[in-house]
Amino acid sequence: MKRIKRRFTRTIYVGEVPVGGGHPVVVQSMTNTDTRDISSTVAQIKRLEEVGCEIIRVAVPDEEAARAICQIKKKIQIPLVADIHFDWRLAIAALEAGADGLRFNPGNIKGLENVRKIILAAKERGAAVRVGVNAGSLERELYRKYGGATPEALVESALRHLDFIVGELGFENLKVSLKSSDVWTTIEAYRLFAEKSDFPLHLGVTEAGGLIAGTVKSAFALGLLLSEGIGDTIRVSLTRDPEEEVHVAYEILRAVGLRQRGPEIISCPTCGRCEINLFPIAEEVEKFARGISQPLKLAVMGCIVNGPGEAKEADVGLAGGKGVGIIFRKGKIIKKVSEEEILPVFFEEVKRLLKENPEF
Amino acid sequence: MKRIKRRFTRTIYVGEVPVGGGHPVVVQSMTNTDTRDISSTVAQIKRLEEVGCEIIRVAVPDEEAARAICQIKKKIQIPLVADIHFDWRLAIAALEAGADGLRFNPGNIKGLENVRKIILAAKERGAAVRVGVNAGSLERELYRKYGGATPEALVESALRHLDFIVGELGFENLKVSLKSSDVWTTIEAYRLFAEKSDFPLHLGVTEAGGLIAGTVKSAFALGLLLSEGIGDTIRVSLTRDPEEEVHVAYEILRAVGLRQRGPEIISCPTCGRCEINLFPIAEEVEKFARGISQPLKLAVMGCIVNGPGEAKEADVGLAGGKGVGIIFRKGKIIKKVSEEEILPVFFEEVKRLLKENPEF
Repeated sequence: MKRIKRRFTRTIYVGEVPVGGGHPVVVQSMTNTDTRDISSTVAQIKRLEEVGCEIIRVAVPDEEAARAICQIKKKIQIPLVADIHFDWRLAIAALEAGADGLRFNPGNIKGLENVRKIILAAKERGAAVRVGVNAGSLERELYRKYGGATPEALVESALRHLDFIVGELGFENLKVSLKSSDVWTTIEAYRLFAEKSDFPLHLGVTEAGGLIAGTVKSAFALGLLLSEGIGDTIRVSLTRDPEEEVHVAYEILRAVGLRQRGPEIISCPTCGRCEINLFPIAEEVEKFARGISQPLKLAVMGCIVNGPGEAKEADVGLAGGKGVGIIFRKGKIIKKVSEEEILPVFFEEVKRLLKENPEF
Repeated sequence: MKRIKRRFTRTIYVGEVPVGGGHPVVVQSMTNTDTRDISSTVAQIKRLEEVGCEIIRVAVPDEEAARAICQIKKKIQIPLVADIHFDWRLAIAALEAGADGLRFNPGNIKGLENVRKIILAAKERGAAVRVGVNAGSLERELYRKYGGATPEALVESALRHLDFIVGELGFENLKVSLKSSDVWTTIEAYRLFAEKSDFPLHLGVTEAGGLIAGTVKSAFALGLLLSEGIGDTIRVSLTRDPEEEVHVAYEILRAVGLRQRGPEIISCPTCGRCEINLFPIAEEVEKFARGISQPLKLAVMGCIVNGPGEAKEADVGLAGGKGVGIIFRKGKIIKKVSEEEILPVFFEEVKRLLKENPEF
């Protein structure tokens, strides 16, 4: 695994979770339930906690949603961030209800005196703030000055907000995001900001899209930035269940070499040499693997001759042939079974390995 | 769109498709049918042609598969590459059957005299050759020398093969791949090779894995290399239908800013402000979009108030609210419809736009 030199930033805290300062890149997501529906929201957050979500954000469209945070907080383990648009009173209400952090775009809040009220309330309660600059809600003046929501415009917007919040109000438990649905604008904005400030960065591509397009955009943009050492917490945004966002986030961190959670599955694309229906087997293994948090290497190969050799780094692997399958460990065949037994024997072998090696 | 400075390479030809020399990055895939089953193989290639596949590779495990190429070639439009392992005679047979190119690892063919036979046959027929170095089948001697399938080992293996093929045999219609299932090994190997040779590069991460893990690995590794100007043709390898590989390949090229094929869909991840069940709508739009090759920008937004504004760059968009939906063009609302009408009216609007603007 390549050693990435992370950019130097301050450490801030969202609840008890450190962000920045070289701490592991934190994985976040956002609920898509109605925040006022406390039981659905809690249930979703608990599912997200199980798949490794470390900070959760909820929408706060009204006072009732803000008040719901109090009940939600009692039943979840991870810090909660309230997503605020336009109305400073909702920010105060969310903090009063116990939110560990706020995400808002100061450019969206009318009147500096109201931004001041939010920041002072956050300071009083030890809450974190994410200044969330977004191409879609950039100040008109900057839009005109730069002829669009360019990287420079996004960075100037963020730095202005920081001038006020840090410089004038002395608030420092702060992170920043600079999002655009355009991938290169996002990348360039983060790079530029990273040169000019030592506050931690929350990475994301906004409105990234559906499962495949959104995964591609996020893996490319976040992967590129993370590989340059930029980024302290990430949220993958997909038009899908938030559990899927967390799953993709960890796959990105694994690909870049920053964090490992759950098994890595090496599987071949199948070709004319494959004599077994590998796709459903691979899908079953993927499903099985989501229930495991240890960073095993598993292999699913379509050909019994080259499979074990090509996947010799896998802790446990399976390879299928005509009517038979083999189970291997680190490239060495340990069992030959009938086609129907491949999956159950493979799963058993993985469980045995985990039992024998609790340090995984 | 960012302008990427592509690395300088020679141009080679696979059939009539130019690869390298600044030509658009070519999208490839590989069939997973039994090559001997001509009708299934042809049917799959035709489906792949429709989604934009530009070069197709088929497995050639035996003589019968090699001979099948002759019939397959008659019914398809795109160049065909034969994938050869171990047996030089299969390479000759594939060329005799009309293959436009070969992919093989010279380290896999016993005896330099047999590599010579293959190369001379390719030269005689004007076929292309991909020297496919792979971490899984690296020469033992290099494995020992470098203590593993390191980037340096992969590059030395490739350069040795080139010494013989180019230097001694004078064959130059050649491209190279250096694959490993480890993402950083792959990236570093391509970077290193790119400094040392001007032959075009075929990019891929081998055994990338299932849909999500494979898409993440490929988008990160191929995206990173392409953004550095490295890579002249790509194949995304997934344990899924090859059409999916082509789709992901174009999403990567679009994210990096190198090519556009088909609509880009901007869609929001939904949040507590969303009052419509957006996921099935987004999936329907994704399905619809796969039938379009023009590079439109479409938006699928969950909130009627901010939706059109946040997606103001979309050519056509839809946003859903409680019981109603709106259709917008470039951020401007053009129609308000009932929830059931959103999709049909949206699709109609897209078709109208394409009809009115044939230059798209």
